Amino acid sequence: MQEVQEVRADPMKTRIVECVPNFSEGRRPGVVQEIADAVKSVPGVRLLNQTSDVNHNRSVLTFAGEPIAVKSAAFRAISRAAELIDMEKHQGEHPRIGATDVVPFVPVSGVTMDDCVDLARSLGEEVAEKLHVPVYLYEEAATREDRRNLANIRRGEYEGLKKEISLPARHPDFGEPVMHPTAGATVIGARNYLVAYNINLSTPDVSIAKKIARRVRASSGGLMYVKALGIMLDDRNLAQVSMNLTNFKKTPIHVVFNLVKTEAERYGVSVVGSELIGLAPMDALLDAAEHYLRFEDFSREQVLEAKIWGE
Amino acid sequence: MQEVQEVRADPMKTRIVECVPNFSEGRRPGVVQEIADAVKSVPGVRLLNQTSDVNHNRSVLTFAGEPIAVKSAAFRAISRAAELIDMEKHQGEHPRIGATDVVPFVPVSGVTMDDCVDLARSLGEEVAEKLHVPVYLYEEAATREDRRNLANIRRGEYEGLKKEISLPARHPDFGEPVMHPTAGATVIGARNYLVAYNINLSTPDVSIAKKIARRVRASSGGLMYVKALGIMLDDRNLAQVSMNLTNFKKTPIHVVFNLVKTEAERYGVSVVGSELIGLAPMDALLDAAEHYLRFEDFSREQVLEAKIWGE
Repeated sequence: MQEVQEVRADPMKTRIVECVPNFSEGRRPGVVQEIADAVKSVPGVRLLNQTSDVNHNRSVLTFAGEPIAVKSAAFRAISRAAELIDMEKHQGEHPRIGATDVVPFVPVSGVTMDDCVDLARSLGEEVAEKLHVPVYLYEEAATREDRRNLANIRRGEYEGLKKEISLPARHPDFGEPVMHPTAGATVIGARNYLVAYNINLSTPDVSIAKKIARRVRASSGGLMYVKALGIMLDDRNLAQVSMNLTNFKKTPIHVVFNLVKTEAERYGVSVVGSELIGLAPMDALLDAAEHYLRFEDFSREQVLEAKIWGE
Repeated sequence: MQEVQEVRADPMKTRIVECVPNFSEGRRPGVVQEIADAVKSVPGVRLLNQTSDVNHNRSVLTFAGEPIAVKSAAFRAISRAAELIDMEKHQGEHPRIGATDVVPFVPVSGVTMDDCVDLARSLGEEVAEKLHVPVYLYEEAATREDRRNLANIRRGEYEGLKKEISLPARHPDFGEPVMHPTAGATVIGARNYLVAYNINLSTPDVSIAKKIARRVRASSGGLMYVKALGIMLDDRNLAQVSMNLTNFKKTPIHVVFNLVKTEAERYGVSVVGSELIGLAPMDALLDAAEHYLRFEDFSREQVLEAKIWGE
């Protein structure tokens, strides 16, 4: 049979960026709702999750869509937060320097980390210029090595940074070295998608989960992009290796699963199941199917829904 | 943290049906193109593939989208084919009874087989009424057990059916028992998605692939929804188990893979890789990830792209 496969350019909608801004308000639901409404007012942006913590007096929004729309939604949210939140009156347990405290962009599908760095810098410039909120760039978007780490930028929090921002070492990346009188300062950046993934073991002995966690996590010689803890699930009477995978492209889920399984066997323990917490990009799951089924030449273009939905 | 998960109704776009009509024209590319253009003229329908065979004098279009749009595209294509193809002049090796010979609807995502049966019957009624082409229902949409099998309906082909259509046993399901003077008759129905999947073995001995094919296929006692052959890939000097999976929900890809792998081991042979031919629904691949990673409580709603694209 003579095949005529459709050829078409990559449409915008197959490009998906996620944004997970943190706001210094977790006690007045009406204020959080107004910020969330600002996000939802941008066509093509989908608000995926909304979380508030009263003790932290802080809220986190998760939204996604095509890059330009997501950047626009982030700007509207930061702008609304600057109007509604007064850092002079803010109290809460979580470290913070501004009404919009931190804004990471995350590549999900069809975009690179460089694209997200560009988005972060472009948004930073706009926020400083139009809202007069000084902006620091962090993680992959950082312009200085010591600003990769968010904790360094947030040192002294709102109150401390207010005094030190005029010092050259603490000058922002965009805007004047003066805090916004009510909105403070904002950290914007780009990071990898974080997959929260837990593996449950056929044992109530949490010391085994702790030993496996040490073996699998980067900090003690394990896999580069894994953070892990061994914890006890009292309600199920079993131990769990609870993990964050900070780069599922370089350290795929199935590699983590296989290593935990092998380590568990060494203690005569088996894997009873695993849990994906929240959302994950399709690629993170297809990588596992591709691995275990030993696909040759598999392409994401072979997923029927991707062809339809990506229209 | 207090979670506020977005609640929303299932939007239309998450419902995807595929349609794979066969037309009795494979020699005049212009005619095939006009039929393909009729499909593409419906917004929300994506033409995924187009295949013509000169010896069969037959073409196959594959398109997908939301159910109502797909039904509308199918009607336009059948209508155009009735104008452009004259069965009185048609010759080709492949059995056929009409200009549009057979039209299966296939559930892909968010639709049931019953939905596809409804689509098939509703289209059949419309085609008979508006185009005066008699319609037979087959496979899951069949109204009589002996019409589940396409071969029974097509017995005698266009020329034979023209003589026998007036016999009560051969009356169509919709329309008068008279062939359309040029377009003949059409078979419309619903069937499962067909996944074409091959597994390559670490041996040039095709007899091993043939033995494994016999073990794995339904016709010789294997898995219910598997058709399989053992063939030789001369260019790679290895044997392959070449398969069609006719119901990936009830006989998932990973079950087929694991059985072939186990059978291969019995001959001291291993699986060097596998190939997914053409497109597959996302679910078929996620099922494999879910199985091997031993997910507990995994939901399709956890795929980020599905949430965005499904908007």
